[in-house]
Amino acid sequence: MKTDIQIAQEAQMAHIKDVAATVGIEEEELEFYGKYKAKLSDDVWEKVKDKPNGKLVLVTAINPTPAGEGKTTTTVGLGQALAKLDKKAIIALREPSLGPCFGIKGGAAGGGYAQVVPMEDLNLHFTGDFHAITSANNLLAALLDNHIQQGNKLQIDPRQVVWKRCLDMNDRNLRNIVVGLGSKMDGMVREDHFVITVASEIMAILCLADDIHDLRRRLGRIIVAYNFNGDPVTAEDLKATGAMTALLKDAIKPNLIQTLEHTPALVHGGPFANIAHGCNSVRATKMALKLSDITVTEAGFGADLGAEKFFDIKCRKAGLKPDAVVLVATVRALKYNGGVAKADLSEENLEALKKGIVNLEKHIENIQKYDIPVVVTLNSFVTDTKAENEFIRQFCQEKGCEFALSEVWEKGGEGGIALANKVLDTLENKESHFHTLYEDELSLEEKIETISKEIYGARGVIYEPAAKKQLAKIASMGFGNLPVCMAKNQYSLSDDAKKLGRPTDFDIHIREVYVSAGAGFVVALTGAVMTMPGLPKVPAANGIDVSEEGNIVGLF
Amino acid sequence: MKTDIQIAQEAQMAHIKDVAATVGIEEEELEFYGKYKAKLSDDVWEKVKDKPNGKLVLVTAINPTPAGEGKTTTTVGLGQALAKLDKKAIIALREPSLGPCFGIKGGAAGGGYAQVVPMEDLNLHFTGDFHAITSANNLLAALLDNHIQQGNKLQIDPRQVVWKRCLDMNDRNLRNIVVGLGSKMDGMVREDHFVITVASEIMAILCLADDIHDLRRRLGRIIVAYNFNGDPVTAEDLKATGAMTALLKDAIKPNLIQTLEHTPALVHGGPFANIAHGCNSVRATKMALKLSDITVTEAGFGADLGAEKFFDIKCRKAGLKPDAVVLVATVRALKYNGGVAKADLSEENLEALKKGIVNLEKHIENIQKYDIPVVVTLNSFVTDTKAENEFIRQFCQEKGCEFALSEVWEKGGEGGIALANKVLDTLENKESHFHTLYEDELSLEEKIETISKEIYGARGVIYEPAAKKQLAKIASMGFGNLPVCMAKNQYSLSDDAKKLGRPTDFDIHIREVYVSAGAGFVVALTGAVMTMPGLPKVPAANGIDVSEEGNIVGLF
Repeated sequence: MKTDIQIAQEAQMAHIKDVAATVGIEEEELEFYGKYKAKLSDDVWEKVKDKPNGKLVLVTAINPTPAGEGKTTTTVGLGQALAKLDKKAIIALREPSLGPCFGIKGGAAGGGYAQVVPMEDLNLHFTGDFHAITSANNLLAALLDNHIQQGNKLQIDPRQVVWKRCLDMNDRNLRNIVVGLGSKMDGMVREDHFVITVASEIMAILCLADDIHDLRRRLGRIIVAYNFNGDPVTAEDLKATGAMTALLKDAIKPNLIQTLEHTPALVHGGPFANIAHGCNSVRATKMALKLSDITVTEAGFGADLGAEKFFDIKCRKAGLKPDAVVLVATVRALKYNGGVAKADLSEENLEALKKGIVNLEKHIENIQKYDIPVVVTLNSFVTDTKAENEFIRQFCQEKGCEFALSEVWEKGGEGGIALANKVLDTLENKESHFHTLYEDELSLEEKIETISKEIYGARGVIYEPAAKKQLAKIASMGFGNLPVCMAKNQYSLSDDAKKLGRPTDFDIHIREVYVSAGAGFVVALTGAVMTMPGLPKVPAANGIDVSEEGNIVGLF
Repeated sequence: MKTDIQIAQEAQMAHIKDVAATVGIEEEELEFYGKYKAKLSDDVWEKVKDKPNGKLVLVTAINPTPAGEGKTTTTVGLGQALAKLDKKAIIALREPSLGPCFGIKGGAAGGGYAQVVPMEDLNLHFTGDFHAITSANNLLAALLDNHIQQGNKLQIDPRQVVWKRCLDMNDRNLRNIVVGLGSKMDGMVREDHFVITVASEIMAILCLADDIHDLRRRLGRIIVAYNFNGDPVTAEDLKATGAMTALLKDAIKPNLIQTLEHTPALVHGGPFANIAHGCNSVRATKMALKLSDITVTEAGFGADLGAEKFFDIKCRKAGLKPDAVVLVATVRALKYNGGVAKADLSEENLEALKKGIVNLEKHIENIQKYDIPVVVTLNSFVTDTKAENEFIRQFCQEKGCEFALSEVWEKGGEGGIALANKVLDTLENKESHFHTLYEDELSLEEKIETISKEIYGARGVIYEPAAKKQLAKIASMGFGNLPVCMAKNQYSLSDDAKKLGRPTDFDIHIREVYVSAGAGFVVALTGAVMTMPGLPKVPAANGIDVSEEGNIVGLF
């Protein structure tokens, strides 16, 4: 069995200008980064912006399990399959984060024969977007501390600095630090924290901005601290906005790469799916819709977080209208939800499947609440049995949604033909009446309750006193009309990671609430959220190397 | 008067493939970063490595003053002028650091009509080399702290960690910090420090490495800490080397851009000129020598630091043989050295010039000690008088070196014709008998004394007790045969920044000594060296912006 990186390195890539040509982009409109990566210049948008949109298909999944679901693999494979059926399809994905490559997770570019390439570049520096975000983030931090150092005209309260420095690295030692030690010339002492770059609000902003001017406006609205009166201090107050925008002028342009089968893929931006909305950039999605007949995109984590935020934050803000949803599950993950231990997932177990399928059921119902047609797909695994597959197929039929097996990991686009045909049928025959789950006018508390009850299936919401206060303050600051971005563990529909399947009789506990004023949402935290991961006992970095021939080895 | 960025933005750049073609590089051998930047693939080196070398010309300067000397401007202008005279010339420069762009200094790409372009890209992210170094540096730090966290098998003494994290940002608050606060899961508490990326040993390593395999070996030798027995712990001990190399696989490839007049410029690497050797990469210089008839390169700070290290570290290690040196001075800087205040430099003052010219005299004598022919050039300024110029011309004649006025800032290559002709005369008629100042076999103390007495003109060397101990330890570790990299203030030949001109009767004080085992030199510090700059009261960042048309404005 070949590893992902072996398959990726053996791929015969097309020159990216030839990939671009298949969707009508000319060489002059590309900014090359080597032969296999390019940024789309603003000229592309100017050329296509008045064209009608193609169809928008979101790939999402049941709650993630240690068994793995293969959401990105399915997204890539579906795109490849649509292209095999002579459809003009574009895939829109998130860029992976560098830090986790050196930890446990490894790369993120799909898997098997459904990958985007060049895989090593994508997982390392790619076109530098994340480095640009890191720079802009840390410039803002440096300007803030420098402002305090140089007399603090804005009366920033060092105890109420909310802007954090960032690095694209798994580095637990930077979670809680004290900065500004030394002499008077070495800054003001205060507690500080680093987050991983994908958790920076700038990442969310980049992904929600319409264009560079909107980006600039949003950067200016970032709240970096509160002054001694408790009033917000923004990036604009620090005169940081222009320089930050200059640092991001290329990062905002979507990146074009290809699948193993040369399907065009726009891979752009990658915000956290907990404290942010977890989807690729609005700019890439909009560009894909203009350039293709069908855009296949994905959202982070399971549908309770990823799809909900895709609909209620991204689609709301960008005016997007999804036409169909592909919901990915695996037999193994459903059995895991039914209580089977990871080691025993290879055995047929219809009882456990019946018990675990309620997780899939809830996600189907959830998406149907947005009035979008659903296609369920099983990312097939060699140990799955016919009986198990058949059980799920029947279940889907009863729930009124399409069903298809997917074998894209093993067979690439060829293995996704059945799924692609179901998706095409759905797009042709079932109409989407997409609407958001809630209106802007609801109070923040009502929004949190709506999501918790409707999507998670909670009984109610319990607020910690601090969260209550924060909600009142945020509303008084004029941000009550923003959508809510829920930060919840991804493993359970509830806020308790251990409650698998379809939990009932639980409450959602809101611990903390803050506003990401630049991104344009209010973040509600249901528990401790890790915004700076650590490395494991044996980091993946130990096995990564450059071969005698100059190839990267050991990257997963 | 147009600003540098206005001139740069008005430039009609050639496509970089056309610039490359003028020195025999084919399109296939380039890795494009947009239309105006490219990395040279390893194929270029394979193609040209057996060709004879062209001539190597180093541009250096008198000690820097607030009046400005224009070393990079002269380097670029000389390259442009040689091209005007139909010589196949390549310029080899350092990449500027991002951090200082937002502080006082602004960009660094030459000035006036002697600039390399695209200026904004070069000063911002360029091709991502520095970001790659930042990532590799911080991966090593994360792996180190993770090793301590996960049981500390190597028995690393947290009090003796010498590896520092880095950011390419002027951020004084990160100079002295405490990391690892919080719970047991958040790392081991210890004191830590951030340096600016250009001060990372990885920057020096990248610039001295022959190829990616040499890079890997050097990275492995980095000493990151000492264990409880006082023995060194290296990056290789932490199994970090392969992953760091993977992060640097593109960064090690030289970058090609162009001057305002389309002269090819290899701009690659940019180590500090105090704690490191301050020159562009060996790889870029060697490549330039193979591709051109004349390579014009520069070194950081004045000749006492820049040229000395270029000769005794870079040329020694890379086997380079410089053919001529261009020594840049200005009338204003020499008058400043003669005691004139900055405000009064515009007035003719032959007395001050006579008094200050001893600084130039010492640098001429120093370079002559290496047996390389010298051409002195005056970077002319509108307030310089005929009498002043004539005085310096006569002085140079008496010192046995050529002299030429340079007007490249105002006139581009055309303004450098006189200088270019003197350089061509020198290359044709005067032979270089280059040798290093000292042999590898001297003890570290003897090397420090040789540099201090021969180059700085010191009476002797005084060591602090700690430095004495460190020298003994470094020798006992087997690093006694390495060259010494002196970290001294750049403004004076002595270690007292206030002693201008040609100081006498002074001692050099060695405060601290450490080994950069990967780079391959021993650093001797003569005073406090700032490795993390701060921002000024009104940072340049405040004035940087993106215009309505999407152009960057306010970058100097």
